[in-house]
Amino acid sequence: MKITRRQLLGTGLASSTLILQGCAAQITNAAPTRSESPAISNATSTTAKKFQIGMVVFEGMTNLDLAGPLEIFPRLPDTQVHLIGRENKVIHTDTGMPFLPTISMDDAPKLDLLFIGGGDGTNTLLEDEKTLLFFANRAPDAKWITSVCTGAIVLGAAGLLNGYKAATHWTAMDILPYFGAEPVHQRVVVDRNRITGGGVTAGIDFGLTLAAILHGPILAQSMQLGMEYDPQPPFNTGSPKKASQELINMALDYQADAIQMRLAIAKRIAQRRG
Amino acid sequence: MKITRRQLLGTGLASSTLILQGCAAQITNAAPTRSESPAISNATSTTAKKFQIGMVVFEGMTNLDLAGPLEIFPRLPDTQVHLIGRENKVIHTDTGMPFLPTISMDDAPKLDLLFIGGGDGTNTLLEDEKTLLFFANRAPDAKWITSVCTGAIVLGAAGLLNGYKAATHWTAMDILPYFGAEPVHQRVVVDRNRITGGGVTAGIDFGLTLAAILHGPILAQSMQLGMEYDPQPPFNTGSPKKASQELINMALDYQADAIQMRLAIAKRIAQRRG
Repeated sequence: MKITRRQLLGTGLASSTLILQGCAAQITNAAPTRSESPAISNATSTTAKKFQIGMVVFEGMTNLDLAGPLEIFPRLPDTQVHLIGRENKVIHTDTGMPFLPTISMDDAPKLDLLFIGGGDGTNTLLEDEKTLLFFANRAPDAKWITSVCTGAIVLGAAGLLNGYKAATHWTAMDILPYFGAEPVHQRVVVDRNRITGGGVTAGIDFGLTLAAILHGPILAQSMQLGMEYDPQPPFNTGSPKKASQELINMALDYQADAIQMRLAIAKRIAQRRG
Repeated sequence: MKITRRQLLGTGLASSTLILQGCAAQITNAAPTRSESPAISNATSTTAKKFQIGMVVFEGMTNLDLAGPLEIFPRLPDTQVHLIGRENKVIHTDTGMPFLPTISMDDAPKLDLLFIGGGDGTNTLLEDEKTLLFFANRAPDAKWITSVCTGAIVLGAAGLLNGYKAATHWTAMDILPYFGAEPVHQRVVVDRNRITGGGVTAGIDFGLTLAAILHGPILAQSMQLGMEYDPQPPFNTGSPKKASQELINMALDYQADAIQMRLAIAKRIAQRRG
């Protein structure tokens, strides 16, 4: 009997699934060899009663924003995870990794938890009506509304962080107030049912924190052991509080145009809404 | 002008590319909206002279093993990154995320750096002749031979860790000696041109360490800032040295079959080779 990584992590794997639907024909044709197929099932037949997590994926997203929570969410007990694309077609991360959503926004079921990571592509999403309406329309049904990195800015643009404390990538903190959110410089910020993580690697801290909130600390602790999350960063430059002014200036210089674009979009949206 | 995340990280993005080839027709059809297209180019026309990184991807791999280095490698100056599949078809991570290789083992160019991550799927690779021959045949040309998590076991099965110190996932340390490797309980182990990372999240430490080796500490430090890698794990259970015996037993119990299978395969291989 082959044991899956889910089992290695010691969680309720039998009932944890990542749903493939819509592009299933393409996937089924291409991947006949997967032996630990319990993770792959048909959404329409198995979504009943399970906790539904929708992780919105998009062109130009940062894989590592998603990858932390994506090691965790599908291993939560009685949970189904959907990778939700605007449409049901191939997406590329910001380093060019091609991957597939498992369902489109139009076809996604009712969701108990909404998630979006960040990346360059968020600048496009901030004024993409379909994406913003998806979040705005799905939020009232969701028990939890969550993000990592600049995904928070998309939640903000969708009107979901008004009056909430939130985290985002350190370079985007100044954007949050345009959407009525209060920036907090923490790895993970929990404000009522909004849970937001900081930049990129904060997704791991975010995912484990959420696992503990949803299912208690023991499960989250066992996941942390399974992921061998005992970090020893080679340098002490992981936040603007710790990095030298030279490194900060390097980062800000290199992203000056991106910052300017994001700020212009945020101002435009805030002005439009009065 | 749209600035990419590569630029945000302050690295030599103009010359950093992730190559798409082989399944390009599918990708080109499906992803017309990518605006930061410098990352996507045709391997045959652009591989000349650049540092070629081959990251082997496989069914049942752990996305997070790959995701750390994959935020880093494509942003190194004058570097091209290939996601190399056994064949050129859709692959699923161990949580079911469907994604595409960018090239097949047969079509991959000469590689300066070989990389493989871990996951359940490695148990299959350990006796897969095509995969083992790929590593064995490509290794003599490679300047660096690297892994994260149980990817090290695959390198070992391919005969590439004989006489080397190496790291792997904490549950697989005892397998390394069957392939002549000396297990070392560190996040990253550098022994001559073999660089191996520990389990899952160690891939981030591994990637930054490698960036520093290849291009110096300033670039690596700026990447660490860009990835906001200032970890604050919610628990202190990320290694067997820190976790309680209860958590360790949980993890070992849940993966008893996987450990047994891996050990049986390793013994079989070692015996076959005398």
